[in-house]
Amino acid sequence: MFFQVQQLINPIVADEPDPSAANALQEGLGGQFGEMRTMMQYMFQGFNFRGDAIPYRDLIQGVFMEEISHVELISKTINQLLDGAPGYKGDKFEAPGKGGHATMDNAKTEMNPHHFIVGAQGSLPVDAAGNPWMGSYVHANGNLVLDLLDNLVLESTGRLQKCRIYQMSENKTLRATVAFLIVRDEAHEMAFAKALETLGVDWRSMLPIPKFESHKLPEVKKLLDAGVHREQYHFRLDGSMMDKIFQGASPAKDETDLVTLDRPREEYEIPIMPERPEEFSPGLDPELQELADALVVAKEKVNGRGKK
Amino acid sequence: MFFQVQQLINPIVADEPDPSAANALQEGLGGQFGEMRTMMQYMFQGFNFRGDAIPYRDLIQGVFMEEISHVELISKTINQLLDGAPGYKGDKFEAPGKGGHATMDNAKTEMNPHHFIVGAQGSLPVDAAGNPWMGSYVHANGNLVLDLLDNLVLESTGRLQKCRIYQMSENKTLRATVAFLIVRDEAHEMAFAKALETLGVDWRSMLPIPKFESHKLPEVKKLLDAGVHREQYHFRLDGSMMDKIFQGASPAKDETDLVTLDRPREEYEIPIMPERPEEFSPGLDPELQELADALVVAKEKVNGRGKK
Amino acid sequence: MFFQVQQLINPIVADEPDPSAANALQEGLGGQFGEMRTMMQYMFQGFNFRGDAIPYRDLIQGVFMEEISHVELISKTINQLLDGAPGYKGDKFEAPGKGGHATMDNAKTEMNPHHFIVGAQGSLPVDAAGNPWMGSYVHANGNLVLDLLDNLVLESTGRLQKCRIYQMSENKTLRATVAFLIVRDEAHEMAFAKALETLGVDWRSMLPIPKFESHKLPEVKKLLDAGVHREQYHFRLDGSMMDKIFQGASPAKDETDLVTLDRPREEYEIPIMPERPEEFSPGLDPELQELADALVVAKEKVNGRGKK
Amino acid sequence: MFFQVQQLINPIVADEPDPSAANALQEGLGGQFGEMRTMMQYMFQGFNFRGDAIPYRDLIQGVFMEEISHVELISKTINQLLDGAPGYKGDKFEAPGKGGHATMDNAKTEMNPHHFIVGAQGSLPVDAAGNPWMGSYVHANGNLVLDLLDNLVLESTGRLQKCRIYQMSENKTLRATVAFLIVRDEAHEMAFAKALETLGVDWRSMLPIPKFESHKLPEVKKLLDAGVHREQYHFRLDGSMMDKIFQGASPAKDETDLVTLDRPREEYEIPIMPERPEEFSPGLDPELQELADALVVAKEKVNGRGKK
Amino acid sequence: MFFQVQQLINPIVADEPDPSAANALQEGLGGQFGEMRTMMQYMFQGFNFRGDAIPYRDLIQGVFMEEISHVELISKTINQLLDGAPGYKGDKFEAPGKGGHATMDNAKTEMNPHHFIVGAQGSLPVDAAGNPWMGSYVHANGNLVLDLLDNLVLESTGRLQKCRIYQMSENKTLRATVAFLIVRDEAHEMAFAKALETLGVDWRSMLPIPKFESHKLPEVKKLLDAGVHREQYHFRLDGSMMDKIFQGASPAKDETDLVTLDRPREEYEIPIMPERPEEFSPGLDPELQELADALVVAKEKVNGRGKK
Amino acid sequence: MFFQVQQLINPIVADEPDPSAANALQEGLGGQFGEMRTMMQYMFQGFNFRGDAIPYRDLIQGVFMEEISHVELISKTINQLLDGAPGYKGDKFEAPGKGGHATMDNAKTEMNPHHFIVGAQGSLPVDAAGNPWMGSYVHANGNLVLDLLDNLVLESTGRLQKCRIYQMSENKTLRATVAFLIVRDEAHEMAFAKALETLGVDWRSMLPIPKFESHKLPEVKKLLDAGVHREQYHFRLDGSMMDKIFQGASPAKDETDLVTLDRPREEYEIPIMPERPEEFSPGLDPELQELADALVVAKEKVNGRGKK
Repeated sequence: MFFQVQQLINPIVADEPDPSAANALQEGLGGQFGEMRTMMQYMFQGFNFRGDAIPYRDLIQGVFMEEISHVELISKTINQLLDGAPGYKGDKFEAPGKGGHATMDNAKTEMNPHHFIVGAQGSLPVDAAGNPWMGSYVHANGNLVLDLLDNLVLESTGRLQKCRIYQMSENKTLRATVAFLIVRDEAHEMAFAKALETLGVDWRSMLPIPKFESHKLPEVKKLLDAGVHREQYHFRLDGSMMDKIFQGASPAKDETDLVTLDRPREEYEIPIMPERPEEFSPGLDPELQELADALVVAKEKVNGRGKK
Repeated sequence: MFFQVQQLINPIVADEPDPSAANALQEGLGGQFGEMRTMMQYMFQGFNFRGDAIPYRDLIQGVFMEEISHVELISKTINQLLDGAPGYKGDKFEAPGKGGHATMDNAKTEMNPHHFIVGAQGSLPVDAAGNPWMGSYVHANGNLVLDLLDNLVLESTGRLQKCRIYQMSENKTLRATVAFLIVRDEAHEMAFAKALETLGVDWRSMLPIPKFESHKLPEVKKLLDAGVHREQYHFRLDGSMMDKIFQGASPAKDETDLVTLDRPREEYEIPIMPERPEEFSPGLDPELQELADALVVAKEKVNGRGKK
Repeated sequence: MFFQVQQLINPIVADEPDPSAANALQEGLGGQFGEMRTMMQYMFQGFNFRGDAIPYRDLIQGVFMEEISHVELISKTINQLLDGAPGYKGDKFEAPGKGGHATMDNAKTEMNPHHFIVGAQGSLPVDAAGNPWMGSYVHANGNLVLDLLDNLVLESTGRLQKCRIYQMSENKTLRATVAFLIVRDEAHEMAFAKALETLGVDWRSMLPIPKFESHKLPEVKKLLDAGVHREQYHFRLDGSMMDKIFQGASPAKDETDLVTLDRPREEYEIPIMPERPEEFSPGLDPELQELADALVVAKEKVNGRGKK
Repeated sequence: MFFQVQQLINPIVADEPDPSAANALQEGLGGQFGEMRTMMQYMFQGFNFRGDAIPYRDLIQGVFMEEISHVELISKTINQLLDGAPGYKGDKFEAPGKGGHATMDNAKTEMNPHHFIVGAQGSLPVDAAGNPWMGSYVHANGNLVLDLLDNLVLESTGRLQKCRIYQMSENKTLRATVAFLIVRDEAHEMAFAKALETLGVDWRSMLPIPKFESHKLPEVKKLLDAGVHREQYHFRLDGSMMDKIFQGASPAKDETDLVTLDRPREEYEIPIMPERPEEFSPGLDPELQELADALVVAKEKVNGRGKK
Repeated sequence: MFFQVQQLINPIVADEPDPSAANALQEGLGGQFGEMRTMMQYMFQGFNFRGDAIPYRDLIQGVFMEEISHVELISKTINQLLDGAPGYKGDKFEAPGKGGHATMDNAKTEMNPHHFIVGAQGSLPVDAAGNPWMGSYVHANGNLVLDLLDNLVLESTGRLQKCRIYQMSENKTLRATVAFLIVRDEAHEMAFAKALETLGVDWRSMLPIPKFESHKLPEVKKLLDAGVHREQYHFRLDGSMMDKIFQGASPAKDETDLVTLDRPREEYEIPIMPERPEEFSPGLDPELQELADALVVAKEKVNGRGKK
Repeated sequence: MFFQVQQLINPIVADEPDPSAANALQEGLGGQFGEMRTMMQYMFQGFNFRGDAIPYRDLIQGVFMEEISHVELISKTINQLLDGAPGYKGDKFEAPGKGGHATMDNAKTEMNPHHFIVGAQGSLPVDAAGNPWMGSYVHANGNLVLDLLDNLVLESTGRLQKCRIYQMSENKTLRATVAFLIVRDEAHEMAFAKALETLGVDWRSMLPIPKFESHKLPEVKKLLDAGVHREQYHFRLDGSMMDKIFQGASPAKDETDLVTLDRPREEYEIPIMPERPEEFSPGLDPELQELADALVVAKEKVNGRGKK
């Protein structure tokens, strides 16, 4: 069974809208090696797990839980990068384009027009080339060694692609999220590499993938200094055996140690996204708005908690 | 952020393996109107929600949380229906088929051979015709009325398909899970229909879809008698405004009332699936098994909690 | 603009249900070389036609019109082959499976369970392997010679596949429809081959494809004797230039002549398909049925015309 | 059986070519909620209809007929927006690019290069992100209430997306067609909402979706003033029972009444698209052209009828 | 540039037709981890290779060459398993089914009817569930370590699936081919594991995947005894640097040594597949046959070489 | 069995990078009528060939061999057009973007961002709209006449699309490759047209498709003057019967004769692609590079042969 807290795993940093950066980041969400894939792959591996090697199952399921938060984080980042992109400044109940003036004139030449036609300046379950996510991305072979090795390749490819996306834009909203994912993908590489280490492999000089001086990227360095790349969270309310595996010397052979925690040390408020009349989103007219408002008198009590 | 408890939302009932029933049930998992779709659709609608009509967001996200449990429940049910299907009784480290005898002879004529070749007698992210799940199934338009109406269609179609699957097999493992989902889909119909009712619609005699005397199905009747079809859970550790909507008279106009709870009244132990040597799952040989065993001395402490 | 008459282009012949024959016939409906493809390919070629060679456009559009009737004919044939397949004999408003007895027990092992879960024992836009139809099947290059040659290949492949399907079942419902399509595909081969002949090709001994003594198939012979394989209809209410091309000696070099008509010489009543309670189709309960009945007092006047 | 008149349901308005507007409009043609989907969904629902509630079948099939005209209208609009886009002005039989000068230099950076490589500056069965149309878009459940509700969602989503596309360009060719479709989608919303009203629902303040002052869009206002949003055509040459449903007060509760007609009040000439040598379309060289010309001496008689 | 010799890499062993075994084997041909994937993945990695680490490129390309032979071998094996499956014994120019007798009656209930409708009892580019092969299966990241690790996962998953298929049938035609591929996939695991070993990894007890006593499978044992699992061929007519990597102690740590050869030690005649009139394949009627025969007077000289 | 020589079939001509030209050329690689399709279609037709009409099989397989070279040529051309496109000039082991400066800033707005995120500025198995290649593109019907006619359509459509791509850019790298493919596609049209001619067709004035004065394109003229459009190579090390068909007067009726050769008259060195640190390709850090270098002391001996 699964539970939610309305908080983000990393903050959304403010910067200008950038729809093409949003589109690049779609690869990290709905791409073949993106977060929807990791989320669903670990979910299926966990649900289909055979045998009693429980620490391995708990490791896989713990990363599964984190991946939902990553999907949320990327989704919110894409939304922020898209929000207001075509620049409409109309009032709440005003009919956009009413005078024959095009309010989303740029939208038709953005990388993926679906961000404006299908979504309301919001994230989509597609990759950076606009292809929908597919169930065949999920690998759950049921062979423990192979599934762990497949997961290592998955995290490594995801990290490689995010390293490339990092360089495609200086937008701070993009970079804050991508840097966090580069670091967390490294932690997940460690998780699966360590699990394979318990089954005999010695990785020596090979990890992480890709291997480069990632601390030279300033947003990454901050997280490395905080040790975020060597922590793993199990997100289990009833205890976990993940720490049987995720502990001791890192398989990156860099003198660091792995640490299992029950949840991240910090969590962050989720900003409420503004209405976008030019998208008819949420699209309540005055009459419907009045009906909806009748329900929400107590809303500030629930959603105003912010960063702890 | 998201959390897990290693418990099921409904129990797995024992009966004989039935691979074709497992395949039919795949429609409820990876079909266009299956639980992966509902899970991902409500997830995207929640993450992309615009405006401050928080009770509607909380309603959608609460159902999202439940859908992950449904994916888990269907996955475990499929596994149970597939498990041991080809009837191999070999020992743990024995090479299957070693004497030239085919140990999975039936597998090649089962409805979807992928259950045996790609998965290890385990669930797959595909539908009952073997098509992989697609991201394009997810509808998240960003227009509140339309999204709610789309969700109502989604739950209704899911319920219709499960009513059809119910009649395709008398297997108790299948029927226990399908009956539970028929009832919960009805609850979700109520959730979205009620949300639309707050925005003005009067459903009169139309609901639920399909409309028939579902209490004549014995497994369903038991759940209706317990009121499971009029409850909704929010699964939020930090509170929810779902109950602003999900309360009062049911839109089915049948004299019942809707009740919001923080979590289901009961939860159920998840059985550990046995090893299947003929699938090389988990595929540890004596040497690897010894390494893995070294990690799991404490396992019984964590996983032996059962039904509360 | 487009118009409809509620009549079939060939009659549905009665025989026993045969779901696997229905599934084979899906290839002729939703397969890569099936009638949905021909319908959509000629539609796009017609709408995208460039230049003033109007007789070629009118030829393509005339065949487009016929293909919609073929889609209708195959769809109705599949429905007939599926109808009642699992053998449920319940009453109209009775809850199927109510006593725990499976009313569609066979359905889960039929070739495509979607016929029973997704459709209500009805045709689907998929092929015989369950793959959904795709827009990429449509070829509309805009080069006249190439489009005509592509159409010839399309009709020839469609005819080849139907010749194979003919041999896969002796069911009379299947064979009546398939034989008609074998003959009409030959007519369409002639249409596009003749159009290429006007642009210079001499086909000599090559046509039709596949080349065999099709008159030895009794259902085909009857249609050949009636000359159905050398007629083409334009279905235009405002006149057509199709007959500039489709006239004169057949490119099959068999001493026959091509004849253009405005519509087929005969048309056939469309049977009303019975309700199927086990599919909840149409699924009106007594209350809803009463509402619907209020609308249909005059129905017999409209639908009781039959074969002219 | 189906028939054609070579006339459009709405005129093509002249303006400059705009390939990115053409690409946005592809969503309305080949997108998941575009006209190909509506056409095929209503076609399958009509062909698979069960039971004797004929007015509902006739309503669905009447809208099916209209959707073919919409596919034609969008296709022709896309063609007009693409035509001549890269600006080649060569003569009919001249080899384009012959001196090494690129005649379609812009084409490689347009939104979908397939418009120039695969099509000859013509419409394609794809959406605005270039994904091919899929058969799985078609929903034909066979449950009448559910199919009608699904159709309402389909028309509402189509209308929402067209409202968004309207704002993405001021091009008059685009806006004339999109405005017409916004209005007709509203009529189709009324059709299915009214059908559900006959089965009990009271929509009160909810319709149409999206709900906004659409008369503030000038092209839309003109059509609303003419009442086009409250008419529905049955396109049946042998009579229809559609008017049993589509009559009386509109479910939008705006004091208007629904009117069933046998066909639209006006129809419009289809312009002949010019040859495009740079696309080799139609690609007849002088020798082939001479052969083709021999067939078309009488063409002006057939195609020169224009607006009635 | 690429060259062909009309010889097989392993012989086709005779046994009864078995269409469901043929279908299972399709996973090894057109599945996500089948030979079409390995062929295309190594092809793209080779063509896109960056930098001057030539031995790694030559290793990848050498395996690419072998994979084309594997595709050929599986294709021929599937053909053999399908050939004559429905049992028609008609004469060469006879019209099948001419008397109303269904000559391919079984075909419509075989696992994938496409084997009989789309192919002429021949292999298809699809997997065992009928899904077409997709380009997105190909992983060519351009990062050397990651590509090698991805290749190791690919070969391991392929080998796991073939081990499962081995157990699904005792058919000798199937098992001879599958056993050969199990052994060659192990050789390819060694190739990529050794390449990673040169970059630092120590695999210790982990390989091969899956790890079991494969010599207990009699067809496999024969090949292991001949050392086929420790050879790799480069198939280069102009020399290769593959042997810089593929030499020395096997990474399986089993006291064996790796050996690079320019081509396999043996090669095998390709049987000519018989005509199948019921499939209209090749479908030459007497007139066309006579024309074709005029070309082939010398054919026996070319094709009668057999096993060397 | 298959063999390789590390040489190209046509030289790569130097010019500036042009990512949008690279993207257009993807249609010729991974499009529905691109070289991956021709390669796989002829491969399957060859492997599935029935009967003893060996010259036809040898013709099909000879073209198959050439198509692998075309895939290689297009792949290398795309790589050249992409290489260095975003303009990063960093050193080999330097962390790109280290100071927060975006090194691939342009990449996110290029036609297909996958060229930079998924590939390392390298070719992909996709078309110009980013859709992955699909196995359903392959047509292998098993009917000889139909397969030959399908191949003629395939080559004609491929040639038409390349003629369009030619005009989309003046880039010399693009045009050299495209002109070569226009000419070779014409040769392949001749191959299949001639094969059909042996079975009776007289093509008269129809070929090639598209029909225009291609010698007015300077890069094409050079190849026509050299007779490259009338040669075909069989690439068989053990002899071929292709020349029974591919000889005598060309079916284009232009006074030329067809010539069968065992391989092309010339072949060309394959340039080594430089490392791209901003893509982490090949991504060896100093430590890994040292390990790799230990293997490659003899590399210049193997790869420095150039044009013969």
